[in-house]
Amino acid sequence: MSEGVGAERDRPFRVGVLGHGTVGSAFRELIEQRADAIAAEVGVRPEISGVLTRSRGDFADILERSDLVVELIGGIEPAREYALATLAAGRHFVTANKQLVSSHGEELFEAAAEQGVQLRFEAAVAGVVPAIRVIGETLAAAHIERVYGIVNGTTNFILTAMQRTGASYEEALREAQELGYAEADPTEDVTGKDAAAKMAILARLAFGTPVHVDDVPHEGIERVTAEDIAYARELGLSLKLIGSAERIDGGLSVEVYPAFLYAGHPLAAVNGSYNAVTIESPAITEITLSGPGAGGSQTASAVLGDVISAMIPPPFTPSPAEHLPLVTDRESAFYMHVEVADDPGVLAQVAEILGLQGVSIESVVQKGIGDDARLAMVMHPVLESKFRAAVDLIGRLDFVRSTPRVIRVIAETFE
Amino acid sequence: MSEGVGAERDRPFRVGVLGHGTVGSAFRELIEQRADAIAAEVGVRPEISGVLTRSRGDFADILERSDLVVELIGGIEPAREYALATLAAGRHFVTANKQLVSSHGEELFEAAAEQGVQLRFEAAVAGVVPAIRVIGETLAAAHIERVYGIVNGTTNFILTAMQRTGASYEEALREAQELGYAEADPTEDVTGKDAAAKMAILARLAFGTPVHVDDVPHEGIERVTAEDIAYARELGLSLKLIGSAERIDGGLSVEVYPAFLYAGHPLAAVNGSYNAVTIESPAITEITLSGPGAGGSQTASAVLGDVISAMIPPPFTPSPAEHLPLVTDRESAFYMHVEVADDPGVLAQVAEILGLQGVSIESVVQKGIGDDARLAMVMHPVLESKFRAAVDLIGRLDFVRSTPRVIRVIAETFE
Repeated sequence: MSEGVGAERDRPFRVGVLGHGTVGSAFRELIEQRADAIAAEVGVRPEISGVLTRSRGDFADILERSDLVVELIGGIEPAREYALATLAAGRHFVTANKQLVSSHGEELFEAAAEQGVQLRFEAAVAGVVPAIRVIGETLAAAHIERVYGIVNGTTNFILTAMQRTGASYEEALREAQELGYAEADPTEDVTGKDAAAKMAILARLAFGTPVHVDDVPHEGIERVTAEDIAYARELGLSLKLIGSAERIDGGLSVEVYPAFLYAGHPLAAVNGSYNAVTIESPAITEITLSGPGAGGSQTASAVLGDVISAMIPPPFTPSPAEHLPLVTDRESAFYMHVEVADDPGVLAQVAEILGLQGVSIESVVQKGIGDDARLAMVMHPVLESKFRAAVDLIGRLDFVRSTPRVIRVIAETFE
Repeated sequence: MSEGVGAERDRPFRVGVLGHGTVGSAFRELIEQRADAIAAEVGVRPEISGVLTRSRGDFADILERSDLVVELIGGIEPAREYALATLAAGRHFVTANKQLVSSHGEELFEAAAEQGVQLRFEAAVAGVVPAIRVIGETLAAAHIERVYGIVNGTTNFILTAMQRTGASYEEALREAQELGYAEADPTEDVTGKDAAAKMAILARLAFGTPVHVDDVPHEGIERVTAEDIAYARELGLSLKLIGSAERIDGGLSVEVYPAFLYAGHPLAAVNGSYNAVTIESPAITEITLSGPGAGGSQTASAVLGDVISAMIPPPFTPSPAEHLPLVTDRESAFYMHVEVADDPGVLAQVAEILGLQGVSIESVVQKGIGDDARLAMVMHPVLESKFRAAVDLIGRLDFVRSTPRVIRVIAETFE
């Protein structure tokens, strides 16, 4: 550790803050409130050494006067430039910036390791849920098989609203925007891109394999209809946007997709803007962590937790433990919804195509509407490529009146 | 830190194990499996230096050859004697023993602080759920208002079985015993004593106030009937054994009691032998942690996590932050079930007595059965002493045919 990072008990621990939005102000308020408690616990008192806003402050000057820099600007540049400069100067760096860490993580990890300083980013992933911390603490004691969960509060709020009120996607999105749970431009959230960045970070930590956000296939919730949700309810299912990272056949699969969960699944009860992350390992079975996914004071708390950890040695820098190949085709159960002509033999033909591809049906709801019928089916687990091939064939049948809609299904694993 | 605890990188970290039951063997197996991964992460390789069983091994000899002693014997003596000897010798001590920590915690904390060694006990509280770790990490960053949850897997298994199958308490207990979720003598679990010990430990850590297990009022689940559960279902409630520790009027309330939860409550979805702990603070709102409450390999994982943490400085010793007075009377919502004569005016009289004590009724189910009727009511939150006074008066009414049964109700706080 460079001499720049002194934690002598006779002088405060100096924290520079970049950015002064909602989280920035909440963080400054919180650190002032907790300074005495932190000094009592850690033996050093934290103090804000400078704040950089768009109109005020000079980065080089703040860096000079700080033991640690907190970055709350967001986006790639200039956040990346500030991060590298901070680490190169032998100062700790704490960020809530998922884009930065999921795109330039390796570069930052190396810079931190070189200087023996800490790089922490708990607030980048799941709000107050200490997913990064618990994964880090679990790593040495247990072989992690899978990390999955709900890591985007906006989409969980929208899906919960659709399920509670029968609202359409558009109506629920508008409600989320009015209540401040969704941005005016919700693209990052509803397309699953935000969740993909978070899963890239979690996968990197849990499996020691560098994962770039662009390596994570992601499907969002924009095409989910009130009708899917209504049919699924009859089948005992509820819809969540799931991020998952897991070992498969000696490789690593990282994905984001909407999925139906059976009522008994622990994530089925995570509603509204809450996040939850489950860590699975043969030795521990599973640990699930849940809590608010965002909010100024919640994010500020996660940032402050990182600052406190950085005040205490030893430095935390994740080291690559293994480099797993990325896997993209894997087994899953699926839900399929398709509109067909209401003729005899239609279900039999659909079932035959599924059977030829090795897809076995678990349950079916069929409803006639005028001359049409709607089929909603849940399949037993099958390799995704096989199921997609069957769906492709079904979509080309004469009597099929709509493009089949496909959503994954996660079985009850609880107990 | 004494010279006895050396973590030089050129020699292994020596772990002595006291006890060789299910957890002891699982721990030895796990540490062997994970030794390489731990060495890679921490820079030191752990190794078992000796095992003390009833028939084999000498404690003084094992202590001499160990940097850290793991105690898995259970009970107060000789566990306490071994703990004090270990700490006095300047060695770290890790235990899964809730009785020991909840009865003699202060003595052990002092001994550890005196020698600058670590005393860790994550496995004593909630199986794989890292409640102690997360409370410790949250403490400096946030003012904790309340810690509560389901900390006994046996009773949660029994209550879940009663709710799923309509079984009686006795039937569900027998099933739990057959499946290994309950001991032949289930007293500690079903009376709430086990949960009380765990809540004493959590309260000590979260609020810096020494709490002895005997200070924790606890009510068990032995008197819960299938009928209570059936009525409650009609009111949208499910039953859990709740342990809670919270700040009230400048004091600290720590209790264990069966409580009904509304369906939307995050703990309502925690079923079977799972445990869950929720940590509430204004800044973070809440964090909920859940996972299997027990099991040999799960407990062994929690113990190994503590061993790894002890291998890494700095030492962790909780220091008393404040000494809150213990509070026993507090506000809660309540469920009451009572058998009455099926006469006109009965409900009115019951309601009048409740009203005179300031108790307001939220919902009622009344059912006639022959000449009798059964009343199941849920009250709005009220000071417990006032409600108990009303129940006492109701119990003395002529037309009342049974002692009223009372269970607390926890409102939906989720979202």
